[in-house]
Amino acid sequence: MGQSVKGMQMTEILPSYVNGGWWAPDAAGSPAGTTAAATSETPATEVRDASTGEVVARVSTEGLDLGAALEFARTVGQRSLGALTFHQRAVLLKQMALALTERKQELYELSSRTGATKQDSWVDIDGGIGVLFAYSSKGRRELPNAQVYVDGGVEQLSKDGSFLGRHIYTRLPGVAVQINAFNFPVWGSLEKFAPAFLAGVPSLVKPATPTGYLAEAFVRILVESGLLPDGSLQLVSGSVPGLFGHLRLGDLVAFTGSASTAERLRANDSVQTGGVRFTSETDSINASVLGPDAVAGTPEFDAYVKQLVAEMTTKAGQKCTAIRRAVVPAASVDGVIEAVRARIAERIVIGDPRAEGVTMGPLASLEQRDEVLRQVRRLAGEGGEVVIGSTDAPSVRLADGSTGEAADGAFVEPVMLRFADAASPALHEVEAFGPVTSIVGYDTVDEAVRLVARGGGSLVTSVATHDPAVAVALASGIAAYNGRLLLLDRDDARTSTGHGSPLPNLVHGGPGRAGGGEELGGIRAVLHHMQRTAVQGSPEMLTALTGVWHAGAASTPFAEAGQPHPFRKSLAELRIGDQVVSGSRTVTLEDIETFAHFTGDTFYAHMDEASAAANPFFPGRVAHGYLLVSWAAGLFVDAAPGPVLANSGLENLRFVTPVSPGDTIRVELTAKQITPRETDEYGEVRWDAVLRNQHDELVASYDVLTLVAKELEPAA
Amino acid sequence: MGQSVKGMQMTEILPSYVNGGWWAPDAAGSPAGTTAAATSETPATEVRDASTGEVVARVSTEGLDLGAALEFARTVGQRSLGALTFHQRAVLLKQMALALTERKQELYELSSRTGATKQDSWVDIDGGIGVLFAYSSKGRRELPNAQVYVDGGVEQLSKDGSFLGRHIYTRLPGVAVQINAFNFPVWGSLEKFAPAFLAGVPSLVKPATPTGYLAEAFVRILVESGLLPDGSLQLVSGSVPGLFGHLRLGDLVAFTGSASTAERLRANDSVQTGGVRFTSETDSINASVLGPDAVAGTPEFDAYVKQLVAEMTTKAGQKCTAIRRAVVPAASVDGVIEAVRARIAERIVIGDPRAEGVTMGPLASLEQRDEVLRQVRRLAGEGGEVVIGSTDAPSVRLADGSTGEAADGAFVEPVMLRFADAASPALHEVEAFGPVTSIVGYDTVDEAVRLVARGGGSLVTSVATHDPAVAVALASGIAAYNGRLLLLDRDDARTSTGHGSPLPNLVHGGPGRAGGGEELGGIRAVLHHMQRTAVQGSPEMLTALTGVWHAGAASTPFAEAGQPHPFRKSLAELRIGDQVVSGSRTVTLEDIETFAHFTGDTFYAHMDEASAAANPFFPGRVAHGYLLVSWAAGLFVDAAPGPVLANSGLENLRFVTPVSPGDTIRVELTAKQITPRETDEYGEVRWDAVLRNQHDELVASYDVLTLVAKELEPAA
Repeated sequence: MGQSVKGMQMTEILPSYVNGGWWAPDAAGSPAGTTAAATSETPATEVRDASTGEVVARVSTEGLDLGAALEFARTVGQRSLGALTFHQRAVLLKQMALALTERKQELYELSSRTGATKQDSWVDIDGGIGVLFAYSSKGRRELPNAQVYVDGGVEQLSKDGSFLGRHIYTRLPGVAVQINAFNFPVWGSLEKFAPAFLAGVPSLVKPATPTGYLAEAFVRILVESGLLPDGSLQLVSGSVPGLFGHLRLGDLVAFTGSASTAERLRANDSVQTGGVRFTSETDSINASVLGPDAVAGTPEFDAYVKQLVAEMTTKAGQKCTAIRRAVVPAASVDGVIEAVRARIAERIVIGDPRAEGVTMGPLASLEQRDEVLRQVRRLAGEGGEVVIGSTDAPSVRLADGSTGEAADGAFVEPVMLRFADAASPALHEVEAFGPVTSIVGYDTVDEAVRLVARGGGSLVTSVATHDPAVAVALASGIAAYNGRLLLLDRDDARTSTGHGSPLPNLVHGGPGRAGGGEELGGIRAVLHHMQRTAVQGSPEMLTALTGVWHAGAASTPFAEAGQPHPFRKSLAELRIGDQVVSGSRTVTLEDIETFAHFTGDTFYAHMDEASAAANPFFPGRVAHGYLLVSWAAGLFVDAAPGPVLANSGLENLRFVTPVSPGDTIRVELTAKQITPRETDEYGEVRWDAVLRNQHDELVASYDVLTLVAKELEPAA
Repeated sequence: MGQSVKGMQMTEILPSYVNGGWWAPDAAGSPAGTTAAATSETPATEVRDASTGEVVARVSTEGLDLGAALEFARTVGQRSLGALTFHQRAVLLKQMALALTERKQELYELSSRTGATKQDSWVDIDGGIGVLFAYSSKGRRELPNAQVYVDGGVEQLSKDGSFLGRHIYTRLPGVAVQINAFNFPVWGSLEKFAPAFLAGVPSLVKPATPTGYLAEAFVRILVESGLLPDGSLQLVSGSVPGLFGHLRLGDLVAFTGSASTAERLRANDSVQTGGVRFTSETDSINASVLGPDAVAGTPEFDAYVKQLVAEMTTKAGQKCTAIRRAVVPAASVDGVIEAVRARIAERIVIGDPRAEGVTMGPLASLEQRDEVLRQVRRLAGEGGEVVIGSTDAPSVRLADGSTGEAADGAFVEPVMLRFADAASPALHEVEAFGPVTSIVGYDTVDEAVRLVARGGGSLVTSVATHDPAVAVALASGIAAYNGRLLLLDRDDARTSTGHGSPLPNLVHGGPGRAGGGEELGGIRAVLHHMQRTAVQGSPEMLTALTGVWHAGAASTPFAEAGQPHPFRKSLAELRIGDQVVSGSRTVTLEDIETFAHFTGDTFYAHMDEASAAANPFFPGRVAHGYLLVSWAAGLFVDAAPGPVLANSGLENLRFVTPVSPGDTIRVELTAKQITPRETDEYGEVRWDAVLRNQHDELVASYDVLTLVAKELEPAA
C-alpha cells in the first residue's frame, strides 16, 4: 500500500507521512489495484499559486489506509511517547524548533506561494516555531519531570489521615487528529501538535489542501531531523474520508475551520456517543469596541484605527481572529471611517508578495476570493453600505514590480461596510473571510455590550479605552462571550501583540459560534489531551501513583537504619520519603527580643504583652513566624558542603499555632518531590516541612524548595 | 397561567416553583383553556409507593410556560445572584444546609416511600445537605470574596511589563438546567445546584418523575426558609417538552440519567450549534478489580467482598456508580462468589424500608423492576450464569413485620452472574440498574486493564491490592477510562468512603459511556458554570478588572501625599495598591554570622568562603534567604498595635539574586488582594513583597499573608 518517496517534485502527488514512512498513491495503492500511478496521471486535486495561478502541488490520498495510520499512532506512537517524561518531550520540542529555524528559509519560499507577505509568513512560520519554544519552556517550568500531572491539593477524606483524595491527569490512550485550516499551515499545525506531544499523545495532522504543501515541508524537516519519536507525528496530505468511523474512546479531534464543517464533524457517532473528544476553533464575528472616552485625538483612537487596519489587511484578513465588527460611539463612526481610509491609502500596497513593497497579498485561492466577494455582496444587500474599497478586481503590483490586473491572482481590496441599523442580523452573523470589516455605532456602553454578545460567541474582542470603569463595565459584560479580551490603551498600545494574535500562553478559542473549544493557554492545552481522574486511597498508594510524598506514607528518618542525612544524598541517591526528624529547641523571651532587634521587626505581638494578649489570635507575646522558620532550617540543615546547592524558595507557608516563650519546637523535613533537570547538572527537590510544638500541635507547615546536584562531586 | 398553591395534598398535582411562586396546572393553564381542573381530575402521571403501590403523588406540567421560567432565571435570577460575591453565596449555602437539617425528618418520611432504607435515605438526604456544607466551606476557602475568579499566573507579554496576560472566569450569563435521575432526588439535585449557585448562575431543577415529590419537599423547605435570592432556584415537577428550543448561548444543561437519553438530548440544535453547554453523567459499567496479591485470607480480599455486597444492595443497586463487573484473578472467582453469597445470606434482609431490620428495599417502581429483570435475562442469555439469587419474586419483610410476597412492591433479589468468557460483549455493555453484578476472571494485570477499559468509560473503578506496584500498573492503565479510582487496602479499608460514593471534593463523572462530563470536584464544578477568558492589557486595566494588584499598576506609597502606613489602615480603609517603600539596610559578614549562630543554620554557603564560591550559584558567602525575609519584615513593619492582627503565612517565595556582604537591600510591600471574611471581624490581606539590592536587581519576591481587622478598634 503506497511507496516510499525520497523527494518530491511539484508535479508529483504531495506525499503523506504515515506508518513510519512517506507514502503517495501508486497503482498498487488504489483500491481496486488497477488504475492510477504515482505520476502526473494520478487523478488529484491541483493546488495553485495564489498570485499567479501556477500549479504548485497535486493532492490525493486515494488508497491510503487511514485506519492503519491511526492504529500505528495508538500503538507505536503511544509506546514511544510513553517512554518519555514531560521534560524529555519538552526538550525535544525545543530541538524541533531549532531544526525548523535552521531551515526556515525553505518554508518562507513556499509560503509566498500561498499569498502570504513576508510579515504574514513570519506570523505563520516564526509564530509556529515560537509555539514549540514556548511549550518547551512551559513544559519544563510548569510540569513535573514525570508522566502524571497532579491537579489541586490533597483532600482529607478521613479524620485519621488514612484515606486521601487527589486528582491526577493521565494522557489519553489514543491519537490526536488535528484538522487544520488553510490560512496558517505551519502555526496552525504546530499549535495543536506541541501540546499533544507534550501530553504524550501522538498526532495525526491533516492540513487544508490549498496550503498543505507548506505543512508537508515542515513535517519533512522534522522527519529529517530525526527528532520525532516513532509514530508521534503523522501527516495526511489530502482528504480523510471515513475518518470518524475509525475513531474511538481515547482519541480526540481538534478542528480549526468553518462553523458549518465543525457542526457536520461533531455530529459523527464516534463523537456523539463514542466518547471521542471533539474540540473546534471556528472563525467568529469578532468585535473591536472603541470606548466613549477614546475620541479622535486620543492615543486610544489612534491605536484603535491602527489595529483595525492591521487586522483587515494582515494575511489579507484571512484570520479567524480578525475584526469583523468595529463597534464605535455613534459620534465617532465618520471619524473612524476617515482615519481607516487614510491609513489604508497611506500604507497598503496590494500585490504579489514576492514584489518589493507589497503589504497585502492575495487570498489563498480564487475560490476563496469568490466566496469573500459573495459574502460582501450579501452584507451589502442586508443593510451594509460599502464605505471603503469595492468588490471590483483591484489593480495590483505584480512580481516584476509592474502594476496591473492579475486575472489568475486571488486579489481583493480592503472593504469596510457601514451598518446604520445595529440590529441587522447580517452584521452579527455573516462573515466575509478576507480583508472585510463592518462598522456600526452605539449610544451607551450597555448597548455596546449587547452588540458584542450578538456575535453569539467570539474568539476575541478588543476594547480601546483609557477609562478603567469603561473597561470593567465592558469586560465584565462580554467576557463570558469571548475566549480572549484585549484591553488597548496608551499604556500598552506600543507593546500590544494585537487583537488578532493568539499567543501560546493564552487560551485560544471561544464559546458558541467560535466553536466552544480551547487551544493553547500554556499547560491548559496539554491537560486537554489528558483525562482528569479523582484518586482515593491510602497515603502510601497515592505516593506510589503520583510520585509525590503524601503525609502518612512511609518515610525513612536519616538517623535510623544507618541512613545518611538527606542533604548528603545526590539526586541519584535521594528517595521520596527520605526524612530528617530534628531535635527540639525551646524559645525564650530573650530569643524573641534578640530576633526582634536583629531584624527590626518589633511588631507588638512580639514585644508588647498587653497588646499581644488583646489580639484575638495570641495568648500574649509570641515568637516571630520567621524566627520559627529560620530555626527550623537550623534544626534540619546538614551544614557541610555537599550535593545540596541552594534554598531556592518556599511555598504554602501557613502559621497555625502560635509559639509562646517556653514552648519547644521541632521539625520534620521529608523529601516530597524530586525533579531532575534534563539539561542541567542539578534539579529541584521539594521538601515537606512540618513544625510542631511540645504538645504535638501543628505550628507551621510549608514546602522548602532546594536545588540539588544530580551526582556527588568526586571531591565532595 | 397556573395558580398559587399554599400546601399540597397527595392527591393534588405536585406543584412546580417557577417565576417566583408555586404553580400547578389549572383549567386556565391547559393549552386549549378548556379541560382539566387542578384537582384529581387533571390527567397526570401517577407516582406510587415503591413497596406498597399506593399513589403518592400526581405529576403534570400541562400549561407551564417554560420559556418564561427560563427568562425569569436569566433576568431576575442573574440579577439577584449577581449582587452577591462568592463568599456571600457560600454563606447562604450553609444557611440552606442548616434549614434543611432542621426539617430533614419530613424528607426521611417521604424518602421511605421511594424504597429507600434509612441508610439509603441518609446517603440521599444527609449526603445532599453535606454537599451544601462542603461547597459553603470550599467557596470561602478557595474562592475570593469577589465575583471574578483569576486562573493561573500572570503572563508577561512584553519585556517592559506594560502588556500582561491573565485568565479570568466569569459566570455564564444564562440559566443552569439540571435534569436529575430518580435514584437520589435530594443529593442529585443539590450536587448540581450548589456549584451553580456559588458560580452565580440560577438553577432550574427538573427532578425525575418517580421521586419528584421528594425534590418538591426540599425545595419547599428552601423556599420557606426565605434564603433563596429571587430566581436563583426554580423547580419543574414533571416533564419539560420543548426545553431545548428555549435554550441559548450562556445556558447550560447538566443531565444525570441513562446514556441513551443523554444522547438524544445532546443531539439538540441548541447544543450542537447554539453554544448551550451540555454535560452528562450517565450510569456506567463500573468495575472493581481484586489484585493478584489479594487472595482469600488477606484483609484486601475481605474488604473487597464487603464493598461488593454493599454496592450490590445499597439503594438496591440503583446507583450510577455501583459495581457492575467484579474483575478477579481466575483462581479467586469461586472464592469471591462463595464469600459474597455468605455475606448476603448473613446481612441482607429485603423488605419494606419501614419494617424493622430491613437492609435492602425495593426498586423505585414496578417499571424499574421489570426493566432490571429484563436486563438480567439478557445477561444470562449472552454468557452469564446466575450464581447468586434469581429473577423470581422474592419473599420479603412487609411493613407490619410479617414475611410474604408483595405483588405491588418492586422487589428484586441480589443477583450475581458469572461470565466464563471475559470477551462477552454483554458483560461490558449491558447494565441491569439494580442489585446486579457480574463476575469474571483474569490471568494477568494487563488483561485486567483491558477488561476495565472495555467498559468504554466509567464513573469509577476500584482496585483492592496492598501491592503498590500492582496499584500503579492498574491505575496508570485505567485512569484515562475513569472519572474516579479507589485504591482499597488494609490501610484505608476502615476509613474508605466506598466505591459507590461520589464526594463533593472529588470529581464525579467519567469519559465515554459515563457521559463525558464532570460534576463536583470542589471548585472545579463552580468553574464549569463559568467562562474562562484570556485577558490582555496594561497592569492598570488588569488590576481594575480582577481586583488583584498587578506590578506596574498605580500604587500609593505611604510616605507620599500624607498617606498613613498601610498597617494603620483597617480593611475598610485599605486600598489595593497601598504601599510601603522601605528604607535600605546593608548586610555585613557579621550579620550573616550572627544569624547563622542564632538560628543554627551554618550551611556552608553562608559560612565557608571557598565552598560557597565553588557552588555554581554563589560568588562566595551569601546571606541566608530567611535573614533577608526577616529583615524585610523589619523594614516594612509598622510595629504599634493596630488593625493588622497577624502574619498568617507566605506564598510563592523565590530567591533570585544572592546577597553578599556589603550588599544593600530594600523592600516594596504593596496591598495586592483584600478578602474580608463574611462571618468574622477580620479578613485576609495579601501583600506583594519585592526585595531588591543596590543595583535594583531582584533579590526575592513573595506574597505575605496577613489577617487585618475590618474596622479600627475604638481604642486603637
